[in-house]
Amino acid sequence: MNTIRDIARFDQPLTLDSGAVLPHIDVAYETYGELNAEADNAVLVLHGLTGTQHAMGTSPETGRPGWWDAAIGPGKAIDTDRYFVVSPNALGSYGGSTSAASPDPETNLPYGSRFPIVTIGDSVESHARLADKLGITRFHSIIGGCFGGFQAMEWMARHPDMVGSSVVISATPRTSAHNTALWSVLRAAIRSDPNWNGGNYYNRDAPDTGLGLAAMFGALFWMSREVFETKFGLRRIEGDEPQYGFEPEYAVEEFLEGVSRNAAGRIDANALLYLTRAIDYFDMRRGHADLAAAFARYAAPTLLISYTGDWRYPAEDMEEIAVALRENSTGCRHDTLNSPAGHGGFLYDTERLSPLLAAFLNDPKTVVQAS
Amino acid sequence: MNTIRDIARFDQPLTLDSGAVLPHIDVAYETYGELNAEADNAVLVLHGLTGTQHAMGTSPETGRPGWWDAAIGPGKAIDTDRYFVVSPNALGSYGGSTSAASPDPETNLPYGSRFPIVTIGDSVESHARLADKLGITRFHSIIGGCFGGFQAMEWMARHPDMVGSSVVISATPRTSAHNTALWSVLRAAIRSDPNWNGGNYYNRDAPDTGLGLAAMFGALFWMSREVFETKFGLRRIEGDEPQYGFEPEYAVEEFLEGVSRNAAGRIDANALLYLTRAIDYFDMRRGHADLAAAFARYAAPTLLISYTGDWRYPAEDMEEIAVALRENSTGCRHDTLNSPAGHGGFLYDTERLSPLLAAFLNDPKTVVQAS
Repeated sequence: MNTIRDIARFDQPLTLDSGAVLPHIDVAYETYGELNAEADNAVLVLHGLTGTQHAMGTSPETGRPGWWDAAIGPGKAIDTDRYFVVSPNALGSYGGSTSAASPDPETNLPYGSRFPIVTIGDSVESHARLADKLGITRFHSIIGGCFGGFQAMEWMARHPDMVGSSVVISATPRTSAHNTALWSVLRAAIRSDPNWNGGNYYNRDAPDTGLGLAAMFGALFWMSREVFETKFGLRRIEGDEPQYGFEPEYAVEEFLEGVSRNAAGRIDANALLYLTRAIDYFDMRRGHADLAAAFARYAAPTLLISYTGDWRYPAEDMEEIAVALRENSTGCRHDTLNSPAGHGGFLYDTERLSPLLAAFLNDPKTVVQAS
Repeated sequence: MNTIRDIARFDQPLTLDSGAVLPHIDVAYETYGELNAEADNAVLVLHGLTGTQHAMGTSPETGRPGWWDAAIGPGKAIDTDRYFVVSPNALGSYGGSTSAASPDPETNLPYGSRFPIVTIGDSVESHARLADKLGITRFHSIIGGCFGGFQAMEWMARHPDMVGSSVVISATPRTSAHNTALWSVLRAAIRSDPNWNGGNYYNRDAPDTGLGLAAMFGALFWMSREVFETKFGLRRIEGDEPQYGFEPEYAVEEFLEGVSRNAAGRIDANALLYLTRAIDYFDMRRGHADLAAAFARYAAPTLLISYTGDWRYPAEDMEEIAVALRENSTGCRHDTLNSPAGHGGFLYDTERLSPLLAAFLNDPKTVVQAS
């Protein structure tokens, strides 16, 4: 059960949803566990906006735990003793898959802002190539939360024959105006940094101030008001008395400084621009009469998970997916879990999610019917 | 019933909560209606974070309506045919009251970052001087929402004899960690702009980029997800097809660009730093055994208004004020109104608020007893 980190190179050009063409693409990925002889135990795990392919274990490079270490591993919900877990990096992200940081074959310099817009669907096409290379014709299950959940839905619509079952967590059939507003402001924060330099900063100082602002602002949405109150309240870094100044004085201010600092060097600012724009364009109904039509060719069992505190991806919007699948007579179970962490629930608060996920992977049809 | 715009100068030094001293202070204000012979029909109206003393009618300078034009005027909820409305600018704000933009008497240059921290309570002390100058020993009512609501609470605690009744809207007894986090990020956005220049920009280009970022950040919190969905959804500025680029393409992006543009020239960036820091320090319990003790000397009728959609200043936190007042046997009514506008409800959605406000001003005791 070793972690295998690799980058797969595909020389066949990829035509993107926009019509632009990437002459070749790289897909960075990690795998955990072993593919069995029948090649029918593969589970595709798809990361969120600021995740990478590093989903499990401790990264030898950064020393950081994988983003879903709580759920993936021997004996865990996604049991690596049973399943071959494939965790690819999204196209346009910063884990080594082709992105704005990659060399433009025309100039051999990093693409920067010349990199074309890539969609959630384009990312799925890049991962379909990886599946092919790994000898997987059908995944036992495809699992994703948030940005990963959008990808899971595109898999269901585009490659239904490759999806044995799917788990969509904290993701709605299209983004919302509020999300687009949020992404638009995060992008403005990055671009406001003079170091962003029109997206061309790979051989100079990175726009860490703008990226830090974006990360801090994002933290106000990833975490709920309740979590802020419980963790920090009005507690001061030192003492109880007001200091009457602008220096960080409250514990919550110290926390945000850490958020800003941690983003620098870990997240590529351009990747955040491209990935958030991909979400803006995400709309499963586009090109279809309705949502049921988008999923018309998909017939596998589906588990949908929403969280009570997640007002940005609310349960009622996720229920639209359930309604569409049931309209197609496709087995579907939608559970709404309680978590003070809200949108981050699936990452940090896996106590209720894990047994459900394990049972679903063990026998998707039965779990769906039991709902 | 004319608008009277004026700036009152007070030469007596003001010792601030921090211990710092302002050698003299200016209080900018507008008044609407006439003070009667008994001087007992004055209503103090206190603006929110980004408001000014311009509460009613159309500003001759900017052509903009006052922030509470919906509620103040002849025959309106706060009827200027009956009441003498006093609308002062907060200390540290950008309507002409003493702030970081004012000349430092020591240098005759704008204070900039040398301006001391002013608290909500300090602002109340500056307005108490204005009341004295206008010949008002007791207001018929003191009314404020959000930042204005914090000020109303400080009035109740500091000058209970000057408060005939009070209306506190969308304001909690202390700020929350999430609010402090939000303010901290808004301040970081402003300071990230090289034009901010350590707060000294009054004779050069203003930090409009940072201020615009802060204003856009703020808009994501002033307006609810539902309002964003209803107003914008995924509607495009032109056509229906994705443009696959980063130029503003969605109506919501165009809206945010307007928010950013409108902040420039209207809001002084330093004022936003100082006013948000004043909110960070706001905590009615500080220096008291509990909230009831803070309001121990206050005995007038109080109307509390919260909004269902206002998760940043929730009804349950406002109810703490009601509990404390009732503990002191002080008459108090707390109504929670429905409004999709959430925290902005009292500004934009006055249909339910106005009749309640009018009835309360007409006969505070009866309205409170009827609850």
